[in-house]
Amino acid sequence: MIDWKKNELLPVIIQDYKNKMVLMLAYMNEEAYNLTKETGYVHYFSRSKNRIWKKGEVSKHFQEVKEIFIDCDQDTILIFIKQNGVACHTGYESCFFKSITKDEIIFKTKLDLSKTYFH
Amino acid sequence: MIDWKKNELLPVIIQDYKNKMVLMLAYMNEEAYNLTKETGYVHYFSRSKNRIWKKGEVSKHFQEVKEIFIDCDQDTILIFIKQNGVACHTGYESCFFKSITKDEIIFKTKLDLSKTYFH
Repeated sequence: MIDWKKNELLPVIIQDYKNKMVLMLAYMNEEAYNLTKETGYVHYFSRSKNRIWKKGEVSKHFQEVKEIFIDCDQDTILIFIKQNGVACHTGYESCFFKSITKDEIIFKTKLDLSKTYFH
Repeated sequence: MIDWKKNELLPVIIQDYKNKMVLMLAYMNEEAYNLTKETGYVHYFSRSKNRIWKKGEVSKHFQEVKEIFIDCDQDTILIFIKQNGVACHTGYESCFFKSITKDEIIFKTKLDLSKTYFH
């Protein structure tokens, strides 16, 4: 399945299983991946903390696994989750709340963001 | 905005702007990112080809930019696109057509995949 010798860390896209919003991207090593599958809660390998990180371990904003996908090249993971609280430490539902135009970054309000995604 | 000295390559999540399906993940360097913004068509840096790669340059399956987002940490890009043809070289609409259960990989049919995503 996944060749963890070839890829020590793989990017993991986290998508809300209901509204399909992309919430965040983080990284897993083999241990984080196995913990995620075994426990049903998303675990990452934190590159800044240099350790396994259960999402929500401090904030209680846990991510409940609904379905796990691997891409055609088997080097990117996509997980459908049910988010407790919010994914982003800033308080936004999604980490992708900054929209880039030619010359500037627009910080979307939560209302703008949901408009962008759903209309 | 993006610190390309800190991050030579950034992961880019590609999402269909209408149905919100995550189609693929690839990487951009600064040149690919600028070409994407300037032309309105997604360009990547191919790690295997070791060069700029305009998506669809061979297949004609171009990706038209609708909106570009950067995440809270400014190290992941999310792009809403209109896909010409299909994103995956296998012929699937999305590269994420393999669903992982505890013990096996299930290859979803196109019908299964759309059920997974939309119901």
